[in-house]
Amino acid sequence: MLGARGLLRGLRACSSAPRPRRALPARLSVLAALGAAGGERIKVQGWIRSVRSQKEVLFLHVNDGSSLESLQVVADSSLDNGELTFGSSVEVQGQLVQSPSRMQNVELKAEKIEVVGNCDAKNFPLKYKERHPLEYLRQYPHLRCRTNALSSILRIRSEATAAIHSFFKESGFVHIHTPIITSNDCEGAGEIFQIEPSSKINGSDENFFNVPAFLTVSGQLHLEVMSGAFTQVFTFGPTFRAENSQSRRHLAEFYMVEAEISFVENLQDIMQVMEGLFKTATMTVLSNCPEDVELCHKFIAPGQKDRLDHMLKNNFLIISYTEAIEILKKASQNFTFTPEWGADLHTEHEKYLVKHCGNVPVFVINYPLTLKPFYMRDNEDGPQHTVAAVDLLVPGVGELFGGSLREERYHFLEQQLARLRKIERGARDSERDACSTAPTLMKPSSTFPQQMVTRGLNMVMFAFLSATPLSSP
Amino acid sequence: MLGARGLLRGLRACSSAPRPRRALPARLSVLAALGAAGGERIKVQGWIRSVRSQKEVLFLHVNDGSSLESLQVVADSSLDNGELTFGSSVEVQGQLVQSPSRMQNVELKAEKIEVVGNCDAKNFPLKYKERHPLEYLRQYPHLRCRTNALSSILRIRSEATAAIHSFFKESGFVHIHTPIITSNDCEGAGEIFQIEPSSKINGSDENFFNVPAFLTVSGQLHLEVMSGAFTQVFTFGPTFRAENSQSRRHLAEFYMVEAEISFVENLQDIMQVMEGLFKTATMTVLSNCPEDVELCHKFIAPGQKDRLDHMLKNNFLIISYTEAIEILKKASQNFTFTPEWGADLHTEHEKYLVKHCGNVPVFVINYPLTLKPFYMRDNEDGPQHTVAAVDLLVPGVGELFGGSLREERYHFLEQQLARLRKIERGARDSERDACSTAPTLMKPSSTFPQQMVTRGLNMVMFAFLSATPLSSP
Repeated sequence: MLGARGLLRGLRACSSAPRPRRALPARLSVLAALGAAGGERIKVQGWIRSVRSQKEVLFLHVNDGSSLESLQVVADSSLDNGELTFGSSVEVQGQLVQSPSRMQNVELKAEKIEVVGNCDAKNFPLKYKERHPLEYLRQYPHLRCRTNALSSILRIRSEATAAIHSFFKESGFVHIHTPIITSNDCEGAGEIFQIEPSSKINGSDENFFNVPAFLTVSGQLHLEVMSGAFTQVFTFGPTFRAENSQSRRHLAEFYMVEAEISFVENLQDIMQVMEGLFKTATMTVLSNCPEDVELCHKFIAPGQKDRLDHMLKNNFLIISYTEAIEILKKASQNFTFTPEWGADLHTEHEKYLVKHCGNVPVFVINYPLTLKPFYMRDNEDGPQHTVAAVDLLVPGVGELFGGSLREERYHFLEQQLARLRKIERGARDSERDACSTAPTLMKPSSTFPQQMVTRGLNMVMFAFLSATPLSSP
Repeated sequence: MLGARGLLRGLRACSSAPRPRRALPARLSVLAALGAAGGERIKVQGWIRSVRSQKEVLFLHVNDGSSLESLQVVADSSLDNGELTFGSSVEVQGQLVQSPSRMQNVELKAEKIEVVGNCDAKNFPLKYKERHPLEYLRQYPHLRCRTNALSSILRIRSEATAAIHSFFKESGFVHIHTPIITSNDCEGAGEIFQIEPSSKINGSDENFFNVPAFLTVSGQLHLEVMSGAFTQVFTFGPTFRAENSQSRRHLAEFYMVEAEISFVENLQDIMQVMEGLFKTATMTVLSNCPEDVELCHKFIAPGQKDRLDHMLKNNFLIISYTEAIEILKKASQNFTFTPEWGADLHTEHEKYLVKHCGNVPVFVINYPLTLKPFYMRDNEDGPQHTVAAVDLLVPGVGELFGGSLREERYHFLEQQLARLRKIERGARDSERDACSTAPTLMKPSSTFPQQMVTRGLNMVMFAFLSATPLSSP
């Protein structure tokens, strides 16, 4: 009798032993097949993108989402059993050969075509050769990613995500999963989502976590703490806003890259990281997804590739907020919001500035103290009182990155808090809403903030705004 | 007068022009300094881990979180201004030299030491040379990551995260950010969190998204859809449960890797991905964080490294659920839950099985149909009716991965739904709660599920359970 170990080894051996598939042609993705030399016997699986049946020859294009380009399959027309329709999924075996056409390098000479899942082309919402408007595709969340436009965007997004992780890893940053559920509201960036177990919503007064719990609007506070142990940290996760606004710039759920660096002395160091991340991620996407980028370039954002090449070739510019206001004041253009020192830059101003600067990304630095959160570092540059903050304006996008040096000097923080309390009191006195930028007073304790102080604890915050690719199925 | 472009170029040139720091020693991380050859003049920044002041010589250990090991700084005792205490942050300039001691390869001969943030060692909650219990550290979320144990765990987590992303990328998977906010409850895995804008909670009857919205318990349904366009997809994001349970195995928020592959024919293909991911991620961590792993091996999970090496060297075993039950029935051990065909495997059973199999990971395949969700593929192997499901049991962990082949045959799905509706009706009739596993009936429409069908649409679901590293600050 076999011992248990012997039995198990037997089972293992059996299950990984000669399987019939081993002798069969290698299974390749369409991307791998398109890049192969030809000559090999292979098996490819995917969805039919086009069918052209001639008297003796049948041409199919098969796509499996690994690339924008499909693989051309050439078969004897006897292999067409009538189920080879646009949208069906198939498995094709055959020999990869050099293609006589100039349209592709290789094509698959089919020996066997099996329909895995058939498709009733008449009732199928996607139609051969039709370019469906996005509003139409919105109705079919389970099918729309089989279109060129949406599959290209998601392949680019996947590459960009990987490039961002690589950039930080290679620059020595530690990745942190900052919490999604949190009791803090960070800077009070807008209306937030609160959570409770579904059985308790509108019910019991007790909170699941003992305190009210929200969805994060930023991992900043957690990253600040982590930078006090690892020096360079980043996170790249979902963040949430409950703003009821239907616009390109407002999403309930979006992804944001945030980073914190300790021991930084000036904005230059932050700007280097921003420029490095922008250029590295962009170049990775351009080189790894050339066809997907080309498609966007042609049909989605015409000319975008040329604009990106222009941005990559040139150094980003740096201007101060004060200079930006001067440029705007001298502009021949009429703005809806008159540019004035001390006022926020609006989208129309940002657009003018990047165009004026030759359509390269522009860092705007040193903003008025009153425009920015209380923790940004005072430049002590009166009478025009500014703080060490930076925003990166990008052609076609607007503000893409923001960051600042942190105020590490205790008495400056106290001054700022006193100023904000005064504003808040004034606001209350005049029965208006309390000023939303006034932070709660930090209570100095034996351990905080004294022992967290590290000169120039800094932040780089990258907004990588992006629509959630799916609504619920 | 300079034109605007000229002015801007001037500014750019000016800001990236000779800065005094360029002439100064290169800033290195502690990790980079420890790996350097010696001879260079460098600058290092970090937190003091130990101070030893002798008559003429001062020894410091400086750590910046880039590695577990600290850099030894040797200085003339005249550089000690009394502020060089445990916990202070410092910037040290000097020459990296070969160390005369066998404890380290290089040390930094300091020319200048600047205290960036001082630390009152008396009131500082972390003490020199003390190993603080985790329960004590829990009180100091803003400081605890400066300890060896917690910083090691987070560096390992960061490496493991990167390794998981790389493994899938190199295997041709497209990364998908599945939505966090969703209206579906996937398999009904437990109590879920519901969200509403904080201003509306307990308030208005209207839902922000028109329908009730929840935090995701799994991206499975979204990934299934995506695998119908990209063939191989994965996600690695936060998932949520509102279970009020204080245990090592229950977290309100945790990270999970999920993957879906189309066109898979048998469980072997899924098990290859599982084994590949486990081994690749483990080997990456062992080779990139040797010191951190050594620390865990010594103090946190004694012997863990040896156990991992054993798992990596051996093939994983494969046994069927039926064989697992036979092994358990023959066991000399008494179990709290008597092993019986048709009943779930409990933790005690899982532990026995992996031990019995020589402490290597074991795939258990082909579970009873009645134990698993309705969509798993029927093996048609009566009288013991099983489905093509697989769980991977790992020594010291228990169930780590789970997966299955999907049922793509429409009439099998109909049969299963009819069976479950009958159970549900029976449960209702006898006034017990409705069976929680009974899914809502899918309504066949012109586009679904017919056109989603791809033979063997499969899932690999990897649970990468991990505590959120931080409570809210």
